[in-house]
Amino acid sequence: MAETTLRDVSIVGIGQIPVQRQNSHSLRQMGAEAVRRAMASANVDRVDGLFAGNMLSDELQNQKHIATLIASEAGLRGVEALQVRAATATGAAALRMAYFAVASGETPLAVAVGVEKMSDGTATPALAKALDAETELPNGATLLSQNARLMHMYMERYGLTADDFNNFSLNAHTNARTNPNALFKDKEVTMETIRNSPVVIPPLRLYDASPVCDGAAAVVLTRSNEARAYTDHPVKILSSSVATDWFRLDERSDPLHLFAAAQSAHDAFRKANVNRNDIDFFEVHDAFSIMACLLLEAVGFAERGEGWRLAAENKIGPDGSLPVATLGGLKARGHPIGATALYQTCEIVLQLTGRAGENQLPRANLGLLQSVGGAASTVLTHIFGV
Amino acid sequence: MAETTLRDVSIVGIGQIPVQRQNSHSLRQMGAEAVRRAMASANVDRVDGLFAGNMLSDELQNQKHIATLIASEAGLRGVEALQVRAATATGAAALRMAYFAVASGETPLAVAVGVEKMSDGTATPALAKALDAETELPNGATLLSQNARLMHMYMERYGLTADDFNNFSLNAHTNARTNPNALFKDKEVTMETIRNSPVVIPPLRLYDASPVCDGAAAVVLTRSNEARAYTDHPVKILSSSVATDWFRLDERSDPLHLFAAAQSAHDAFRKANVNRNDIDFFEVHDAFSIMACLLLEAVGFAERGEGWRLAAENKIGPDGSLPVATLGGLKARGHPIGATALYQTCEIVLQLTGRAGENQLPRANLGLLQSVGGAASTVLTHIFGV
Repeated sequence: MAETTLRDVSIVGIGQIPVQRQNSHSLRQMGAEAVRRAMASANVDRVDGLFAGNMLSDELQNQKHIATLIASEAGLRGVEALQVRAATATGAAALRMAYFAVASGETPLAVAVGVEKMSDGTATPALAKALDAETELPNGATLLSQNARLMHMYMERYGLTADDFNNFSLNAHTNARTNPNALFKDKEVTMETIRNSPVVIPPLRLYDASPVCDGAAAVVLTRSNEARAYTDHPVKILSSSVATDWFRLDERSDPLHLFAAAQSAHDAFRKANVNRNDIDFFEVHDAFSIMACLLLEAVGFAERGEGWRLAAENKIGPDGSLPVATLGGLKARGHPIGATALYQTCEIVLQLTGRAGENQLPRANLGLLQSVGGAASTVLTHIFGV
Repeated sequence: MAETTLRDVSIVGIGQIPVQRQNSHSLRQMGAEAVRRAMASANVDRVDGLFAGNMLSDELQNQKHIATLIASEAGLRGVEALQVRAATATGAAALRMAYFAVASGETPLAVAVGVEKMSDGTATPALAKALDAETELPNGATLLSQNARLMHMYMERYGLTADDFNNFSLNAHTNARTNPNALFKDKEVTMETIRNSPVVIPPLRLYDASPVCDGAAAVVLTRSNEARAYTDHPVKILSSSVATDWFRLDERSDPLHLFAAAQSAHDAFRKANVNRNDIDFFEVHDAFSIMACLLLEAVGFAERGEGWRLAAENKIGPDGSLPVATLGGLKARGHPIGATALYQTCEIVLQLTGRAGENQLPRANLGLLQSVGGAASTVLTHIFGV
């Protein structure tokens, strides 16, 4: 028991820059700025380790050494710096590595930073490399097309229409309006907007997908027993878990069952010793409406074939039984890939410490985060509490 | 003290496939085969976490999700899988993350795997992305050109010729002859071969650099107090450390002083509570002769300006005071980037457990590993013992 306490890890600082279509600063500057803001929030000007999440810089910035690049840009000469990846779940992988670093006793103070600057080129082909280059890419598969396939299968199996998913998007856009860091904070979106949005790949419409954008976010971690030295608002990482599935959708007996999401959630609940029903809100990986729906089912918040109902019946709104995407989600805060889970972590910290502004949930003691890599072949689950 | 013991981490399985110019299997197959061999060596058919090192698959295999791809190929559905990078030190970053995972108590049994298949395309431009794409690449800089610069500076400052470095290469090639996994095991290299090899970028000659090649290697890690359940030949990771320097050579007051190498070595010696003079052999990052020379100085095995003498006076040979590259090093075993530090770790395990065959050192109780990312902006140091 003493051992467990010693290894408990808390977040003591958060840093976000606004998500934008195109940030005028470079990737390294964006990453360094998020790190500086997180360090300022923890009242420190130095950390012992920097763990960076980024997915696309190889292609978009011709850069394969970004952790050290960001550390150097932030003036942190000497500090440990490593990059971590899990395709589109990369931000959560950086969080997990920082968690490992602190929990192992190796790193007293760690920063996990995620950054993505998708405006520096064409992101779609690079994003598609989250899939199988040998069997899927030659057929023209992209993350968009795989999610369209899943949505089509789901609608066929359960006799639904695309409109049955609309409230995932409406809820996200409504919540984004009061988040100063959200990409779509100034955009009024109604059910009509969503219903009339163009089909990208049938049955998937524009508002069923998250936008390409630029962003960076960071969090500072330390041992829980030292957290109060840095902030009056520490938040505990109650558990961190990763699971994988067979890599390709076609290898899975039922692609609509997200095994990796179910497995890592199960593991995270067990390790945190909390019950699914204790969760107050869920920062879900709503890169696509269908993905949000399938995750709600995989975690067990809805029966198979019923996830869409939580949206349709608006149980996912701020006053619902399970608020999701409380500050805009991937859809409307934006989904700058490697930064996304760090934005979500910052938002969870704000909710759990009563600092979420107009979007503050009335009850927020336990927050859940899930992060999906590729076609849900890698899923990370984190549970946070105060 | 009980806490420290609990967190001690040991290697209980190793797996290597022969380094080749061109492996006939795919990247994922190579990685999965190394994982299977390491698991077989630890007498297990399952691990709890897989941490993969790879630098070039984004460009060469159109693949950005390789940890899960390898896990899936190895039949390890469900297992945690994440990718870690530190440019050309990537293999050591995977080792460090697996070390974190086990030391934190999160992961009872972890595998660190490194894989690179450089024959699938042109590696040089992708490798250069370890440097600064904004200021260095536009001037045509590559890792080769930066190392040629360092070698030229060093020769100028200390009044040396290129021949003064030749024994780094000769020693590596001689040691590779009896390593079944070495790329150049069948190649007889003499001092004449090296002296007459073509200049690539002055003053750097072909034999001053390591070759482009394919390879994969893996190690299985667990807590030291459980190591004997898996193998009769456990090896302890006595310490693991990372440090960084200003990113660009031009930002450093003296580019010939490898600050990150000195810093991470210092930290590693402190954490392992061992003295530099206790080290029996050094698997150095001899990607370039000049880098081996500068690392010997940064760690403190030689005074500034004297590192080349350890080679010239053959103190680095198997019978010397500080054997390096004992099974061929990066130069002659080969340098399949993301796999390199895992090959070196396997070799250190073989030396420390008396299983290094004809290259077995008479005395091998403490082994040192250093791994260099980019122009030594990131350096990892690991110390191993029995």
